Amino acid sequence: MKLLEERILKDGIALNENVLKVDSFLNHQVDVNLMDKIGDEFYSLFKNKNIDKVITIEASGIAPAYATAIKLNVPLVILKKNQSNILNSNLYTTVVHSFTKNIDYNITCSQKFLLPNENILFIDDFLANGEAVLGAYRLCKMANCNLVGVGIVIEKSFQPGRKKLENLKLNIHSLARIEKLSKGEIIFK
Amino acid sequence: MKLLEERILKDGIALNENVLKVDSFLNHQVDVNLMDKIGDEFYSLFKNKNIDKVITIEASGIAPAYATAIKLNVPLVILKKNQSNILNSNLYTTVVHSFTKNIDYNITCSQKFLLPNENILFIDDFLANGEAVLGAYRLCKMANCNLVGVGIVIEKSFQPGRKKLENLKLNIHSLARIEKLSKGEIIFK
Repeated sequence: MKLLEERILKDGIALNENVLKVDSFLNHQVDVNLMDKIGDEFYSLFKNKNIDKVITIEASGIAPAYATAIKLNVPLVILKKNQSNILNSNLYTTVVHSFTKNIDYNITCSQKFLLPNENILFIDDFLANGEAVLGAYRLCKMANCNLVGVGIVIEKSFQPGRKKLENLKLNIHSLARIEKLSKGEIIFK
Repeated sequence: MKLLEERILKDGIALNENVLKVDSFLNHQVDVNLMDKIGDEFYSLFKNKNIDKVITIEASGIAPAYATAIKLNVPLVILKKNQSNILNSNLYTTVVHSFTKNIDYNITCSQKFLLPNENILFIDDFLANGEAVLGAYRLCKMANCNLVGVGIVIEKSFQPGRKKLENLKLNIHSLARIEKLSKGEIIFK
């Protein structure tokens, strides 16, 4: 997505080989017009997939997921993140490892909101190690629904996430794919 | 807001005298069409206030705040929540007490995203004890910007939040005001 790549080059900050700061327009301050166009783009990419619901994980996935759900005119389901281990028979739960923070956390979803045979589109702001998407994939499996698409705003293609998702034959679309980062330099794939 | 009150009566669940579950349409599963109309309503209420930015606190305020920011055509700033005590000279930070979870947490905002003299609209899903709004108010004070409006989707009017905000002469609009909850019963003000 050209507009997004241009914005990343203009306002994104490559802190080092792994970290790209996009907090001025994507995940701390949000440019809602850019986000609306991101919703349009995901709509175009997934409109023929008979999507029943968009899902994301709180918190920074919510804005792009909302922008997409409203274009597709389907409900948005926000998977909850927590570190507690409350067992609750009404929840689907799976453990996700965050490489960034080096912690494990649970993502949970009420069983009411993921129904058998539904076609699910997962949206997130970043794809790096892919652990969040894999967690969402496991929750969909538990609920017997179909993860028919994965929409990512920014993919760090040099990290192992995409490979893991391709191994599961997931249908992934990333709006910007970054091949290489270094301090002050951003190179797209 | 009639449509919201009707939806609360239809799908909200009063668990006890304090807890109203609205997770099927507001904060776990999100009805994006309802949320879009909530954005329209806040737009109507605050469009003459020369709003420069909408702010909210992650995570469940993001959807209504995004829906409002896009109608007002202004940036959305998402205040971050964390329990760590990292001192960072580039952040505004304040401690907020959660009565629900009985914990203190920090809310933070990069100093880049709250600028002197900006007119700020704070949006959140619930108003109960008002501690989150007061935290946002303190961050605005630190940044020398003006909290010119507070938009709340559901106010639990029997809890002390509104009173605290009125004491500060804040301009509050709640789309649904609940006077009383008891198991299975919801009474609007």
